[in-house]
Amino acid sequence: MSATYDTDNIFAKILRGEIPCHRVYEDDATIAFMDVMPQADGHVLVVPKTPSRNLLDADPATLTGLIQVVQKVAKAAQQAFEADGISIMQFNEAAGGQSVFHLHVHVIPRHEGQPLKPHTGTMADHAVLAAQADKLRALLGE
Amino acid sequence: MSATYDTDNIFAKILRGEIPCHRVYEDDATIAFMDVMPQADGHVLVVPKTPSRNLLDADPATLTGLIQVVQKVAKAAQQAFEADGISIMQFNEAAGGQSVFHLHVHVIPRHEGQPLKPHTGTMADHAVLAAQADKLRALLGE
Repeated sequence: MSATYDTDNIFAKILRGEIPCHRVYEDDATIAFMDVMPQADGHVLVVPKTPSRNLLDADPATLTGLIQVVQKVAKAAQQAFEADGISIMQFNEAAGGQSVFHLHVHVIPRHEGQPLKPHTGTMADHAVLAAQADKLRALLGE
Repeated sequence: MSATYDTDNIFAKILRGEIPCHRVYEDDATIAFMDVMPQADGHVLVVPKTPSRNLLDADPATLTGLIQVVQKVAKAAQQAFEADGISIMQFNEAAGGQSVFHLHVHVIPRHEGQPLKPHTGTMADHAVLAAQADKLRALLGE
């Protein structure tokens, strides 16, 4: 299992502003934005700004801020999308389900009887993602 | 979505010592033990002692301790089971995948090419769970 950090991963590019994102929350340590290949409507990624490959090499201090934002986003997503439940997932290394190698947490609104879509899905409509981000930003006081 | 806490849930009973568990870690705020219906070998549950139904109603201070133990257990599980990856999951409400209504985090060692077993699986052999718990406890300095 490699523990190197590749500064060219897509979330590093988003953090540097080289690639746009549908931002829903940002503070000094953390950013949250819409997953462009959502496994369910309203799927958000919460990403610490301090680089680490995943949870296994992260500074414990980074995790403290991260989990607080995960909770904030989960509560906002529950309300914004009238979700029946929220699934939180955090994947480490390819065998663990990780596909972008910068630590991130999936916050996925769930509705009764609706299974998750596969993660290899197609890109969502950007107008839809923008509208979902607006809803979440309003609830998160952004 | 209900936010009530049922003091008769199985993790509350484990916390009160009314039901045994294969403990791998414990501190003032958190306990970790083997999942008796593992989705992969070495599947551990990390559980805060302070009662909350799930992440949505948890005290933010509870989450800070919880995520630190999740990281410790994930690193130990990676080493103990020579895992290629670690999947972390935290489910909120039945629609989100939750089946025991006391906040908990799944830490699941993963190996290349081995999909997760369904969560409705059978009970694991207790001797196997005890041996896995021993390995983890040794690495966690317990």
